[in-house]
Amino acid sequence: MLPVLTLGIDPGTARFGLGLIEGDRELHHVAHDCLTTPAGQPLGSRLARIRDGLQQLFDRHAVTDVAIERLGYARRLTSAVDVSHAIGIAHLVAADHGVPVEEYAPREIKLAVAGYGGADKDSVQEMVRRFLNLDRPPRPDHAADALAVAICHVNSYEARALERQVGVR
Amino acid sequence: MLPVLTLGIDPGTARFGLGLIEGDRELHHVAHDCLTTPAGQPLGSRLARIRDGLQQLFDRHAVTDVAIERLGYARRLTSAVDVSHAIGIAHLVAADHGVPVEEYAPREIKLAVAGYGGADKDSVQEMVRRFLNLDRPPRPDHAADALAVAICHVNSYEARALERQVGVR
Repeated sequence: MLPVLTLGIDPGTARFGLGLIEGDRELHHVAHDCLTTPAGQPLGSRLARIRDGLQQLFDRHAVTDVAIERLGYARRLTSAVDVSHAIGIAHLVAADHGVPVEEYAPREIKLAVAGYGGADKDSVQEMVRRFLNLDRPPRPDHAADALAVAICHVNSYEARALERQVGVR
Repeated sequence: MLPVLTLGIDPGTARFGLGLIEGDRELHHVAHDCLTTPAGQPLGSRLARIRDGLQQLFDRHAVTDVAIERLGYARRLTSAVDVSHAIGIAHLVAADHGVPVEEYAPREIKLAVAGYGGADKDSVQEMVRRFLNLDRPPRPDHAADALAVAICHVNSYEARALERQVGVR
């Protein structure tokens, strides 16, 4: 069986966080990064930059799972639009590689990683550091958040496997 | 000088309207279509279907301009998310082909085509039919709306050219 290689994504058009972890029980940090695109460029060029960055990552790593942070509730419409553009690109590239995608709400991610849905940024980053046995919290914030999404996904892996079994009956 | 070939888009993940017109003063209908994607499929596969449909269109036609209907005001968040995914794909494919994109608000489009920002669907379709000298209003609705976006773009072409000149001074 191939190792589970989960790509977590903290999506945005200006900053697109990526966090890659290996394992389904014991977790290992593989890589993290934050793609950035300049505000002055046309939207299509910025989304192409994100698409290309994702393609490169899929070319280098045999990603088996993609997990994306879903839009929060209290977003402004312009922010929701911006984030949705980037989320769409993530779904597109994952589909091109035949990799299934799950989305998680911000509260779900905080709950899974820090044990509390209202956890602050520092607590989440510190827990990501501990989960992955890192010397210091990963930087920048968006890359740390992306790792948190990946951890959340793996943590709910068994729950989902059970759901699928129940669904099959 | 190459003819102006404007692709109008009425974006959506379930139904993605396309309307292609030629000309910068006298307008000619070239083609219209509505890509549909099944609700049961993963989002990534649906966006890939839209991307592939757009690619085919760009392969067949030397599109010079892309015009997209922007999100209206009163949308629900889930609807805004859905439409934004599709809008992002349109920007992406246009950028891949080096074609500039403009977005227009629903009211702008109705104003440009039917002379009134609050015009109803039937009036817009009837005006699209007249502008393009068609025997009957184009179907389905999303394709007719896409043609309306393209007409709106061409109608504001001279205004934009003037703006660019003024901007250059």
